[in-house]
Amino acid sequence: MKQKGLLYTGKAKSVYRTDTKGQLIVEFRDDITAFDGGKKDKLKNKGSYNAEASAFIFQYLEKNGVKTHFLEMIDPRRMLVRELSMIPLEVIVRNVAAGSIVRNYPFKEGARLNPPVIVIDFKDDSRHDPMLNDDLIIALKLATQKELAAIKKAALKINALLVKLMAAQEITLVDFKIEFGRAGKTIYLGDEISMDSMRLWDKKTKESLDKDVYRFDKGDVMATYNRVVKRITKTAAPKKAAAGKLKTAVKKPVKKSPIKKK
Amino acid sequence: MKQKGLLYTGKAKSVYRTDTKGQLIVEFRDDITAFDGGKKDKLKNKGSYNAEASAFIFQYLEKNGVKTHFLEMIDPRRMLVRELSMIPLEVIVRNVAAGSIVRNYPFKEGARLNPPVIVIDFKDDSRHDPMLNDDLIIALKLATQKELAAIKKAALKINALLVKLMAAQEITLVDFKIEFGRAGKTIYLGDEISMDSMRLWDKKTKESLDKDVYRFDKGDVMATYNRVVKRITKTAAPKKAAAGKLKTAVKKPVKKSPIKKK
Repeated sequence: MKQKGLLYTGKAKSVYRTDTKGQLIVEFRDDITAFDGGKKDKLKNKGSYNAEASAFIFQYLEKNGVKTHFLEMIDPRRMLVRELSMIPLEVIVRNVAAGSIVRNYPFKEGARLNPPVIVIDFKDDSRHDPMLNDDLIIALKLATQKELAAIKKAALKINALLVKLMAAQEITLVDFKIEFGRAGKTIYLGDEISMDSMRLWDKKTKESLDKDVYRFDKGDVMATYNRVVKRITKTAAPKKAAAGKLKTAVKKPVKKSPIKKK
Repeated sequence: MKQKGLLYTGKAKSVYRTDTKGQLIVEFRDDITAFDGGKKDKLKNKGSYNAEASAFIFQYLEKNGVKTHFLEMIDPRRMLVRELSMIPLEVIVRNVAAGSIVRNYPFKEGARLNPPVIVIDFKDDSRHDPMLNDDLIIALKLATQKELAAIKKAALKINALLVKLMAAQEITLVDFKIEFGRAGKTIYLGDEISMDSMRLWDKKTKESLDKDVYRFDKGDVMATYNRVVKRITKTAAPKKAAAGKLKTAVKKPVKKSPIKKK
């Protein structure tokens, strides 16, 4: 697998072409941003922590019937993925009220949302990712009615699986953001699922175990990310994935030691 | 019918109790506001123009099977209505892209939206009426799933009827905002439907025939409101309402001459 030209650079990841058709490399960089890009930093190893969490979670989801873009890890920060035509929707699933939903609506921070609440934003930095509804998604031709139904169904399934995964480690999955893309007529989960894109609370201490540590200067961000990756990936428990089937596809085992520069 | 104490004052209307249980009086004041209250004025006769348009439209909708809170006009600016427990949703139906939808999303001003797009905002001035989606409406307990379905169905029916009404006068119904309320288990259309709450364009000249004339200083606001009321209420055409059944329930006929102060 040979890495070719840069295809796209986001706030925290870069995407490269490869010499294989339909396969791309996602590089998880050490950049971290918050508040619509208003706060920015580079934190050593952040890329590899998020890559490891994402790889583990994608494989866990695949084992449980969710189609994801994950193929394999190339090294601790580079993931080989199926090329998708991304759907510009940020699909946010919320189990507990926190963050923007508490700022914008009369929800009490920490209130259980049961059933989970799905909010879909339009992924468009220039417009600051405005919220959408089903009618707008259809009218803007971002997805068909059928695709939208499939996306919501997948989001709820992913949520149920992640809730279970986190619960096994005494972590509350407060909310998370996912993105989907098309390959042919099939919709796959794309992007990442990491400490950048999930809001996680320790079940006992209520401590933040995610990017909120960075957003609100709650402590050593990378120490937290490192601890959380260890907690999540040591899970041998959740249901179907329990019987030792959840092997990592990482070619070289991901180490927590500092990543060598290429 | 005796008017009793003031129950509620909004930006442009006041609601009074009456000596009859379950009946309220809505007074259409001459206040006009725009931009979330950022622009404010008092324009002579504005209240009566909006009251007349609303009364006509409510009766037209009733004749066509839509349940509204309208009972009768008491005088040119006071409407007797059924008391409702208002649902704090602003239901916006859009047939043509204009206004906030063009500012917030990549729609071209004037683009047809077919099917019509429904956007529902949370009626909460202190939060600047943030947009909702179905999941949020349910989670906030603003309406049940069944009520929400009924509201959307009613909104689309009202839209189809209003499009027809306006088309008969060579007016394009670009969009409009409505509110609903409960009386017992029944949902009724409440609030008003007027030049304040509809966006209307002359079919030929594309001229604004609504509050946009005030918002964007496009001309003599009250001259426009007066002309539009005359155009709308002279409609003897649209469908079922055609056969002379659309009589005004105004006790004293609404005159366009200046309203006497009480």
